[in-house]
Amino acid sequence: MKVCVLPGDGIGPEIVAEAVRVLEALRSDGLALEMETAQLGGSAFDVSGSPYPEATQKLARAADAVLLGAVGGPQWDALPRPLRPERGLLGIRKDLGLFANLRPALLFPELAHASSLKPEIVSGLDILIVRELTGDIYFGEPRGIEVRDGQRVGWNTMIYSESEIRRIAKVGFDAARRRNRRLCSIDKMNVLETTQLWRDVVTEVSADYPDVELSHMLVDNAAMQLVRAPKQFDVLLTGNIFGDILSDEAAMLTGSIGMLASASLDANNKGLYEPSHGSAPDIAGKDIANPLATILSAAMMLRYSFDNEEAALRIENAVKSVLAQGLRTADIWEAGKRRVSTHEMGNAVIAAL
Amino acid sequence: MKVCVLPGDGIGPEIVAEAVRVLEALRSDGLALEMETAQLGGSAFDVSGSPYPEATQKLARAADAVLLGAVGGPQWDALPRPLRPERGLLGIRKDLGLFANLRPALLFPELAHASSLKPEIVSGLDILIVRELTGDIYFGEPRGIEVRDGQRVGWNTMIYSESEIRRIAKVGFDAARRRNRRLCSIDKMNVLETTQLWRDVVTEVSADYPDVELSHMLVDNAAMQLVRAPKQFDVLLTGNIFGDILSDEAAMLTGSIGMLASASLDANNKGLYEPSHGSAPDIAGKDIANPLATILSAAMMLRYSFDNEEAALRIENAVKSVLAQGLRTADIWEAGKRRVSTHEMGNAVIAAL
Ligand SMILES: CC(C)[C@H](C(=O)O)[C@@H](O)C(=O)O
Ligand SMILES: CC(C)[C@H](C(=O)O)[C@@H](O)C(=O)O
Repeated sequence: MKVCVLPGDGIGPEIVAEAVRVLEALRSDGLALEMETAQLGGSAFDVSGSPYPEATQKLARAADAVLLGAVGGPQWDALPRPLRPERGLLGIRKDLGLFANLRPALLFPELAHASSLKPEIVSGLDILIVRELTGDIYFGEPRGIEVRDGQRVGWNTMIYSESEIRRIAKVGFDAARRRNRRLCSIDKMNVLETTQLWRDVVTEVSADYPDVELSHMLVDNAAMQLVRAPKQFDVLLTGNIFGDILSDEAAMLTGSIGMLASASLDANNKGLYEPSHGSAPDIAGKDIANPLATILSAAMMLRYSFDNEEAALRIENAVKSVLAQGLRTADIWEAGKRRVSTHEMGNAVIAAL
Repeated sequence: MKVCVLPGDGIGPEIVAEAVRVLEALRSDGLALEMETAQLGGSAFDVSGSPYPEATQKLARAADAVLLGAVGGPQWDALPRPLRPERGLLGIRKDLGLFANLRPALLFPELAHASSLKPEIVSGLDILIVRELTGDIYFGEPRGIEVRDGQRVGWNTMIYSESEIRRIAKVGFDAARRRNRRLCSIDKMNVLETTQLWRDVVTEVSADYPDVELSHMLVDNAAMQLVRAPKQFDVLLTGNIFGDILSDEAAMLTGSIGMLASASLDANNKGLYEPSHGSAPDIAGKDIANPLATILSAAMMLRYSFDNEEAALRIENAVKSVLAQGLRTADIWEAGKRRVSTHEMGNAVIAAL
């Protein structure tokens, strides 16, 4: 199996290096895996003038899976839109057809203290956000900024077709089947026609999943319910923009976003795997970033793209074990625990494999 | 001064009745005020076939301010879109040009326990959301659902002009001036051109407000920061759809949405005032709903539309006093406090005026 490794920007290279070492450790135990590295985001722009250069496109298309750190940083903020780091990320998602973004919001019991919510509200939290990733207002045309009647006007198009909604709904229902069989679909059907169609099609798809309980919730109410009582949710199914907002809100409920992995899958379980957090340029190069979200993303890669549940569990159990040992990077540290560097955390996970 | 009173649906009539009684009490103390009642939402549809009937339009246009309960309920869910209760609300907002929605998220010290967040995260919380209310994807054209190439497609248009952004930005900066002089403007400029223009224009307007500190934040990050550290915010400036989501999230941080008022203003401080919560059909007619958000909305009306700070403060202090006395409706009740009905709460506020 071929993995395209994209360290990206900011803390990306440091945290990806640890995930790569974990995968190498599994390889020396017999996991069949090839890795090749390429550039994405600002660092790609710096060397090639494009945030998603052709060399990266080739490697990513040929690979079975992509492991990404993170992209972005202030030094690229002034670039024209098509050259900015996040264009690289949007570009690879679209290019590889990665329409299904899976973002678990999971509270690790040892880190419950890190949440800004009361323990009884979040203890045991385990939500999966299934977010559509290649459609919606992110890619909708027409879009732009132009002068009309003497003043600037900016516009974008929110758009979903039936088939786009149906394929992500199936991913959502399938995921719910492997979990607690409850799917809550998010829309703003009382205002937006696009999401009226969303609700209609999701309801149609639900006929094939009589064993999954479907509910619908308006996006504003969902933003409230995530704060009020997040454990009411099992799987949340969302479009691209609502999912962008709600998945970050849900991730932050745990207080330890440095622990949260994500997968973005195409129709054949080829996927891009990346931590839910960003590139954290302020702490880049200091060997203090938390590599666990990236290591757990590698576990998701083994599960979804390589269908290797056993290797995935080995990594996940190793992460649980280092937490149980009391090892913590700075972002999740609390008094009484042992503070470790990015690299030390990687070592500990490898030792615990 | 003429007030158009719109009880609306669900608990609307009960809670508005208490706010009207509070205003009547002030009138008998000399406040010059006329009130006339009309229909909006589902109850308007039931009697006239329209959620925003002509009689209501006339009264609302002629009034100096509108006091609204809430609209909506399951019995109207199956109606065609243009007849649904929320169309009445969107209709009156657009018709009266109420482009500036002010939504305070305020934690009453006596109710701190009601929050799902840790006390240290939310104690003293006092955020003002300034949300644009008559533009954006809510009203953008083209929009619809149609069959293209053999499948249904749904689409909407997010759109803002320079002048729309400028006038709401001014409201935001003016509000920040009356508070802690910090304005955080929300966008998704890394993906949406509409919000790139938003950021540009807000930055231009800030030149006229050198005494207000302007920052910008991406909407997904804002959804996280509200959970992580909400007290970092003073005024949040948002477009219509992002404001819909973030203002509800912010309101829920307090845990007592039954206490939160809102104002929707036009260019001349004519306004519509309503509680931030919904019509709660499940508890309608039981005399248990919390009327305080509506009573506090009446206070906002006196402040913004009638420029009567003194009368506004009289109401707000009366509300503080009933909380200090330990009176609580069911939604904010805790052991050791006195549970009161909607009507009893109204009585207590009037007695405390
Ligand atoms: C960087 C940005 C374009 C991206 C998005 O909005 O999808 C990010 O916020 C995410 O959620 O992965
Ligand atoms: C009822 C609905 C149309 C409305 C909105 O989306 O604006 C409501 O959620 C609000 O925030 O006042």
